[in-house]
Amino acid sequence: MGLSLGELAAHLGAELDGDPEGVVERVDTLPRAEPGAVSFLANRRYSRYLPNTCASAVILTAADREACPVASLVMDNPYLGYARAAALLNPSAEQAGGIHPKAWVSDGAQVDPSAWIGPQAVVESGAKVGAGSYLGPGCVLERDVVIGQGTRLVANVTICKGVTIGDRGLIHPGVVVGADGFGIANDQGVWVKVPQLGSVHIGDDVEIGANTAIDRGALEDTVIENGVKLDNLVQVGHNVHIGEHTAVAGCAAIAGSVRIGKRCTVGGMAAIAGHLEIVDDVHLTGTSAVPRSIPEPGIYSSGMPIQENKAWRRTIARLLKLDELARRVKELESQQDD
Amino acid sequence: MGLSLGELAAHLGAELDGDPEGVVERVDTLPRAEPGAVSFLANRRYSRYLPNTCASAVILTAADREACPVASLVMDNPYLGYARAAALLNPSAEQAGGIHPKAWVSDGAQVDPSAWIGPQAVVESGAKVGAGSYLGPGCVLERDVVIGQGTRLVANVTICKGVTIGDRGLIHPGVVVGADGFGIANDQGVWVKVPQLGSVHIGDDVEIGANTAIDRGALEDTVIENGVKLDNLVQVGHNVHIGEHTAVAGCAAIAGSVRIGKRCTVGGMAAIAGHLEIVDDVHLTGTSAVPRSIPEPGIYSSGMPIQENKAWRRTIARLLKLDELARRVKELESQQDD
Amino acid sequence: MGLSLGELAAHLGAELDGDPEGVVERVDTLPRAEPGAVSFLANRRYSRYLPNTCASAVILTAADREACPVASLVMDNPYLGYARAAALLNPSAEQAGGIHPKAWVSDGAQVDPSAWIGPQAVVESGAKVGAGSYLGPGCVLERDVVIGQGTRLVANVTICKGVTIGDRGLIHPGVVVGADGFGIANDQGVWVKVPQLGSVHIGDDVEIGANTAIDRGALEDTVIENGVKLDNLVQVGHNVHIGEHTAVAGCAAIAGSVRIGKRCTVGGMAAIAGHLEIVDDVHLTGTSAVPRSIPEPGIYSSGMPIQENKAWRRTIARLLKLDELARRVKELESQQDD
Repeated sequence: MGLSLGELAAHLGAELDGDPEGVVERVDTLPRAEPGAVSFLANRRYSRYLPNTCASAVILTAADREACPVASLVMDNPYLGYARAAALLNPSAEQAGGIHPKAWVSDGAQVDPSAWIGPQAVVESGAKVGAGSYLGPGCVLERDVVIGQGTRLVANVTICKGVTIGDRGLIHPGVVVGADGFGIANDQGVWVKVPQLGSVHIGDDVEIGANTAIDRGALEDTVIENGVKLDNLVQVGHNVHIGEHTAVAGCAAIAGSVRIGKRCTVGGMAAIAGHLEIVDDVHLTGTSAVPRSIPEPGIYSSGMPIQENKAWRRTIARLLKLDELARRVKELESQQDD
Repeated sequence: MGLSLGELAAHLGAELDGDPEGVVERVDTLPRAEPGAVSFLANRRYSRYLPNTCASAVILTAADREACPVASLVMDNPYLGYARAAALLNPSAEQAGGIHPKAWVSDGAQVDPSAWIGPQAVVESGAKVGAGSYLGPGCVLERDVVIGQGTRLVANVTICKGVTIGDRGLIHPGVVVGADGFGIANDQGVWVKVPQLGSVHIGDDVEIGANTAIDRGALEDTVIENGVKLDNLVQVGHNVHIGEHTAVAGCAAIAGSVRIGKRCTVGGMAAIAGHLEIVDDVHLTGTSAVPRSIPEPGIYSSGMPIQENKAWRRTIARLLKLDELARRVKELESQQDD
Repeated sequence: MGLSLGELAAHLGAELDGDPEGVVERVDTLPRAEPGAVSFLANRRYSRYLPNTCASAVILTAADREACPVASLVMDNPYLGYARAAALLNPSAEQAGGIHPKAWVSDGAQVDPSAWIGPQAVVESGAKVGAGSYLGPGCVLERDVVIGQGTRLVANVTICKGVTIGDRGLIHPGVVVGADGFGIANDQGVWVKVPQLGSVHIGDDVEIGANTAIDRGALEDTVIENGVKLDNLVQVGHNVHIGEHTAVAGCAAIAGSVRIGKRCTVGGMAAIAGHLEIVDDVHLTGTSAVPRSIPEPGIYSSGMPIQENKAWRRTIARLLKLDELARRVKELESQQDD
């Protein structure tokens, strides 16, 4: 499908610097784009590709307008413009409803006629699948799971008993929602299981990346609010509560009973200890380790960047004696005072 | 089902401070509990909810007895009491045996008549499933796998060829047991695969969290002893040996040929390098990185907690020059000595 | 099957110190080996087992030859010799082609007659499976996936639409290739999805460990070159490019648009931030955090090793005040200069 630059500019709310009759058919990167493509510049690392791009138009900020050799679509957030243009030029395929003959759907389940249940999928008794939702190959809904409307479970997703998921969700392969939390009590050296009696409630417009695991609550429910985005291989412990429009990058681990506010970002491989509270608008950079609650918005970080191996060994040798070094400095200061 | 406080106290070995004829029907948290619920106080963070709880009874230590407005069940380990009460009040449903018509079970497999094989599950030739065990939807047992009695594989679990799993296990969705370990030998820049010829042996009463992976041994078996509890997304490399009643929290990584003792705890996102030995009763806090064997019991830690981002940048700038700083202190000391 | 030491030495390119007519039938570890086994010594930790081994022969370097009580197979890289001997003594079973009656293969898919499609597997329209490849139980190929020749997908693997995988690959259970990358653009606090329009291209001789996730590109493809080996639970973000014969250990996370060169090794739980470039022959030790590009080959490290918990608490208290400590040292130095 093609789109005129005039239409595209109107859709994006961008200012067009070029021929409104020009047509674009796809999005592409600056170095690879050919005529007919709209590209974008949203990261300074890639500005060097702008002067020689063969794209028909580029979405960029006013600051880059002068350097653009082709039509410009000027807006404050070109990355958002790119997201919108890509969605417009690549509409989702229509989806037929029905149940594949190799699926198994319990007589006690309710599947909307416009929903699709793919081959080798399983829908147990009491489960409900809303209008236009899609259960890909090998997905499993245990009993009493509720899936809203227009939600897509791509393949081999497992949703455990009683979990509810809202509308327009997108859940990638290998995701597990509602497995038991890690509740164990110690009886003189032997672990006794704590029954996990809560569930998981996931709001609307939530995306969950491949092989991420979200545990069910011990007593109260684990809650993922509307608009939350989780990347791949994220661990969400039992009773966690994640506020609206928070995004969590890959391999982050959120221990049990953590409460994260709205509009937070959690960087890749960040680790948040149990029972903490993090307010709205907190941003944790990658590999942050969070051992305490965060009562103020802001950017927080921890972790140690690489050094050449020999230098790192020296750093570590010193670091492990840092307490002693600090005492020695204090001693020097006291001598100075004499 | 209901239970009198007298019966419950006897079951828990708790001292009852209240009417033994009082009845409880469920467990709940202190702030949410209503009459008919038994609650518990096991974490100081939640003591503020005790004075106003509406629970019918609370499991707590002698220290909190005075502050409890309702019946008390006094014991040293209230969290254990809660685990026991929750199990008593929420007995597992009865399970029927049989093979779902959409499962596939090889003629060469042995499935106890009291075991259940769910829809879309696969049991290959030579595999055995013991009495009362449960293979949920989409689970796969490759050939010659042995599952003991009363063990539950929830859904989409994969157990590779020849692995043995004991009795009363609980294995959550997405778990993979017995995939090849990461054995590769370098031949002038090209990797040559080392055949992984060992298996995995998992004892009784082992719980394994969602999407955890346990590799088969290269020559000898990977061994998980009785009573071990593994959380979600844990990596257990080939030839690892984990002793009885050790617990490993989410996203921890245990490299190949590590030997961990009994009754250890490994915190979330801890990383243990290959070929190390860790004795009994070692406790690693979350994000610990273990580059050497641990010959003494105790609590060990590493990792750096968050700071506000600007402060962290200053810390890191200094840290990367720590060796130089230490030299400067030494220089100052030598001048002092003059 | 048995093999004479003479044949084995020739196959390995090793120098035999012993009877070439001696026969070995299997490989085993030094302490466990019995007569009929060939063992190896490749790690100094295990030299103590050499003097008493009951193996019939041991693959080792010239340095260990004197200490060997049985036949020696002397070569520079005994671990490679072990890999080769194990493969020779444990040939793969023959595989029959066909489609299991409980699989579902679309009429629009092309499956070579010598390929095997296992029970509960799914092959969607437009997908192609090459000669001698194996799709284990529960594996899913979405539409237009291409699998080369002799590639094995063990079980419950998910390959998303349009992904291509080369020859002789080995993909372990729970792997997800081609799920959407984590592309989200912020619109005044609300996340807007960036359509993920690229694919994943995986070369020949690639092995991918259990529950690893490799995202599809946003616009260009994610590329894994020939001979790359990925361990379990690895995260590979969108648009990542990994060069030939690079190996990545368990739980490592590679963020989007990272470019890693050839023959690199990435240690367990290493974390590489987005949009970085790492040249050929870079080695990152375990738990390395990489916040910047690496333009020079070498060994790089970061992370902090464990201390006894109380000592660590003191270290951290000092570390968080390291900037202040450095200022105090500077102050002392300036006083010294007076």
